[in-house]
Amino acid sequence: MGKYAFGVDIGGTTVKLGLFEEAGSLLRKWEIPTRTENGGAKILPDVAQSIHKIMAEESIFKEEVLGAGVGTPGLVDENGVVSTAVNLGWDVINIPQVLGSLLEVPVKAVNDANAAAFGEMWQGGGKGCKNMVAVTLGTGVGGGIIINGQILTGAVGAGGEIGHIHVEDNEEEVCGCGCKGCLEQYASATGIARLAKKYLTHTDKPSVLRNRNQVTAKDVFDGVKINDELSMEIAKAFGEYLGKGLAIVAAVSNPQVFVIGGGVSKAGEVLFEYIRPAYDKYTFASLRSARLTLAQLGNDAGIYGAAGLFLAK
Amino acid sequence: MGKYAFGVDIGGTTVKLGLFEEAGSLLRKWEIPTRTENGGAKILPDVAQSIHKIMAEESIFKEEVLGAGVGTPGLVDENGVVSTAVNLGWDVINIPQVLGSLLEVPVKAVNDANAAAFGEMWQGGGKGCKNMVAVTLGTGVGGGIIINGQILTGAVGAGGEIGHIHVEDNEEEVCGCGCKGCLEQYASATGIARLAKKYLTHTDKPSVLRNRNQVTAKDVFDGVKINDELSMEIAKAFGEYLGKGLAIVAAVSNPQVFVIGGGVSKAGEVLFEYIRPAYDKYTFASLRSARLTLAQLGNDAGIYGAAGLFLAK
Repeated sequence: MGKYAFGVDIGGTTVKLGLFEEAGSLLRKWEIPTRTENGGAKILPDVAQSIHKIMAEESIFKEEVLGAGVGTPGLVDENGVVSTAVNLGWDVINIPQVLGSLLEVPVKAVNDANAAAFGEMWQGGGKGCKNMVAVTLGTGVGGGIIINGQILTGAVGAGGEIGHIHVEDNEEEVCGCGCKGCLEQYASATGIARLAKKYLTHTDKPSVLRNRNQVTAKDVFDGVKINDELSMEIAKAFGEYLGKGLAIVAAVSNPQVFVIGGGVSKAGEVLFEYIRPAYDKYTFASLRSARLTLAQLGNDAGIYGAAGLFLAK
Repeated sequence: MGKYAFGVDIGGTTVKLGLFEEAGSLLRKWEIPTRTENGGAKILPDVAQSIHKIMAEESIFKEEVLGAGVGTPGLVDENGVVSTAVNLGWDVINIPQVLGSLLEVPVKAVNDANAAAFGEMWQGGGKGCKNMVAVTLGTGVGGGIIINGQILTGAVGAGGEIGHIHVEDNEEEVCGCGCKGCLEQYASATGIARLAKKYLTHTDKPSVLRNRNQVTAKDVFDGVKINDELSMEIAKAFGEYLGKGLAIVAAVSNPQVFVIGGGVSKAGEVLFEYIRPAYDKYTFASLRSARLTLAQLGNDAGIYGAAGLFLAK
């Protein structure tokens, strides 16, 4: 009799779910809407109902389910208690208790960025590594750190918040977190667009980026691919900040590999040509063996990592 | 029948040793010279002989010894294999294997800064905390990070090297590690003396620090205690760098407490008046609950931590 686990990735608009068999294969995946009204009171009951429905369809008994892992926004402590998941409407909620009593199977919960990192370690770009840093370059810069095969949660669940590492003393705009000069202000999709705007304003160098309403991170790396000089300068500034930030993370956590994901990473390995020189400049020799690689699981990283809480060996 | 553990802290000139009983009390401590000649071939045999002698004196049988923990300079991987411990003359050496076969008891080995950090968590300034960062402000800046009660070793044993976090873009002098702008260049005893020299040269403000051959970190904090204005400016620069560095470490590892030790920490809690404002400035709200506290075990932190590898619950 095979065993199963469920992976649940709760987002602000949809909940992604996956059914995995014991060896790690994703058997099926699906989504349900996230109902955030009434303080998010329906979210976990909806998840439970959806999992029960799939179990019925697949003729899976609860005795065959090793557990359900959950990735969620917000600060999640080592017991799976979530706080400050503002987007979901939740106050403080103990996910293993609440969802566990609905499902009658073991439940674990971690932060969504940490779940994605764990997924990439288990079945993605970091497969085979026990010391890994996942970096998600999306609207913001998210992070998840794996130490000796375990998620670095930290005292209040704020471990791995590498988007808020200070990398620039001369910044006047305030980051979403309230500080100035955070990595996220330069290395996220938004940050790259901001750098582009600055470079376009402060030089009059001709560029394919000119005469557009809005320049995106994708435009910049498309420009890099056709050797547009200004695009390459912007990419260099991005790489300098991100390389410096990763070097700092390396001095703290000494990973084997950095797994780079999120929308910006769709530019591909060309990113590394800009990150690597800065990383090497800001690290001492022993840290330079760390590899840079692309994330492989895309939007499924969260469900993989959540299920992996029960399945990863 | 009580059980015992030994803690061994190998330094460049002496090896400190301690005999601990199971509940964590240090029963006796002693030192032997570190014989670094012949590639350090005598170091572990000397340690074994010394431990055997104490066991004979105290009538302790090897069946009563839970283990011997070792803290050593150099990079130490998760299996206790040391590399690049240049000061000791060693090439690559597997301490648990070599010392274990001499002692016929279990042996574990970790980096010396990590051993000291673990000691402070077990019986010192971080007692009761499972997520802690130890910072040693000595000739250099050392660090040890404890995550969920475990030492953060990292891929090659370079975890917790927080002295080499980049905190200053405008630095021209090269750090011992080969980079420029490392935390160690401003927050170590040497770094503070360097800051003092810079401030004394670049202003003509009167100060108790003037007209000395050499200004030390101690002089600066002695000056602070009598409200010498220039000393306070230097302390502020030191605090800005260290607070920024600790804020960065916090965004990665989210500790409950920073335990500050090393020679500079003898200045006492006045240090925190300079570190705290900068720390708060560079951290987002959830990280500000972290405490700053002084190390309590002094030079014994290493033997405590090494023995704690077998005794800490």
